[in-house]
Amino acid sequence: MAKYSEAVGKLVEEFAKLPGIGARSAERLAYYVLENPGKRALPLARALETVKEEVKHCSVCANFSELDPCHICRDPRRDHSVICVVEQPKDLLAIEDSGDYRGVYHVLRGHIAPLENKGPETLTIAKLVERVRQGEVREVILATNPNLEGDGTALYITQKLAPLSVKLTRLARGLAAGSSLEYVSKDIISDALEGRREIRS
Amino acid sequence: MAKYSEAVGKLVEEFAKLPGIGARSAERLAYYVLENPGKRALPLARALETVKEEVKHCSVCANFSELDPCHICRDPRRDHSVICVVEQPKDLLAIEDSGDYRGVYHVLRGHIAPLENKGPETLTIAKLVERVRQGEVREVILATNPNLEGDGTALYITQKLAPLSVKLTRLARGLAAGSSLEYVSKDIISDALEGRREIRS
Repeated sequence: MAKYSEAVGKLVEEFAKLPGIGARSAERLAYYVLENPGKRALPLARALETVKEEVKHCSVCANFSELDPCHICRDPRRDHSVICVVEQPKDLLAIEDSGDYRGVYHVLRGHIAPLENKGPETLTIAKLVERVRQGEVREVILATNPNLEGDGTALYITQKLAPLSVKLTRLARGLAAGSSLEYVSKDIISDALEGRREIRS
Repeated sequence: MAKYSEAVGKLVEEFAKLPGIGARSAERLAYYVLENPGKRALPLARALETVKEEVKHCSVCANFSELDPCHICRDPRRDHSVICVVEQPKDLLAIEDSGDYRGVYHVLRGHIAPLENKGPETLTIAKLVERVRQGEVREVILATNPNLEGDGTALYITQKLAPLSVKLTRLARGLAAGSSLEYVSKDIISDALEGRREIRS
């Protein structure tokens, strides 16, 4: 005996497929939408369709965008001589959120992971090399994740870009602002020691 | 400087309108969907549209359904002589989830709340009285929420149904299974004392 009608059940099921949405939350979302479908269901349905039809990957940086080049790559106020290389579009958001970066991006769309059969050819590394080769680029910031796969990917890119005499940098590592030494892992302590800076007074 | 393209921003915004979905979660959901729009965006968009186009309120019990009468009201295996009256379709789900109820429902679509200008005429009470008047009903279980508005609404319905000589019951009140006396509010203790039962050994 089903507790929802078919259409309602289908909506609950689709919500439950989203990450972090459990069965209970999916039910709550579906019933929220049902209370006023015209105002709540349709705009979300439209936004999803627009995204499906229009959003592609920027042919320059591979970020999500319905424009090509994307709104960041075509922005004349940004510094196009600095490229920040990230694994995923979400990482780009995190850097944009900091408000401190004025350059452009390159989204790898993943990382190298031999055990998962993800070789460098599955990423946009060739395109990055091409961008740098074209000569306008002064600095490439490797902002892959600070873990095994991210470090490996950064190393691979470093080797590929080395012949092109572009300045290569990586994000600083150390203690996270707001963390406390007591609870921090030994890898973080190692990074913080290795990257220690002299205090000039 | 926008961090998303327009279409992506619109999707994040629509997700963020859902209850319990903050800005951060909305971003995560949108980017999840973007990773594979054909498989992730379209089915949800379709489910939302179907719900908008097809799901109405059952003309008998006022639950959400694309069928009329709904799948519960038309189910011959259910006991149509017992009606459980709930405030919202969500409350119906909670009772269905218990698996213990075999009767049918009546959804009020709210509760009486004079301070919010919600009088009894905004609810489906007249329809409930009509259902009971038609004579097949043996028992009406008032399952409004155990709070001021729910109790007031139940009282109003009791007065309306009193002349019809139908058996009226309400859900038991007392200690919640799994709770502990130490942390329970005094209203719950009062209910539990008032509703105490003799132990027959």
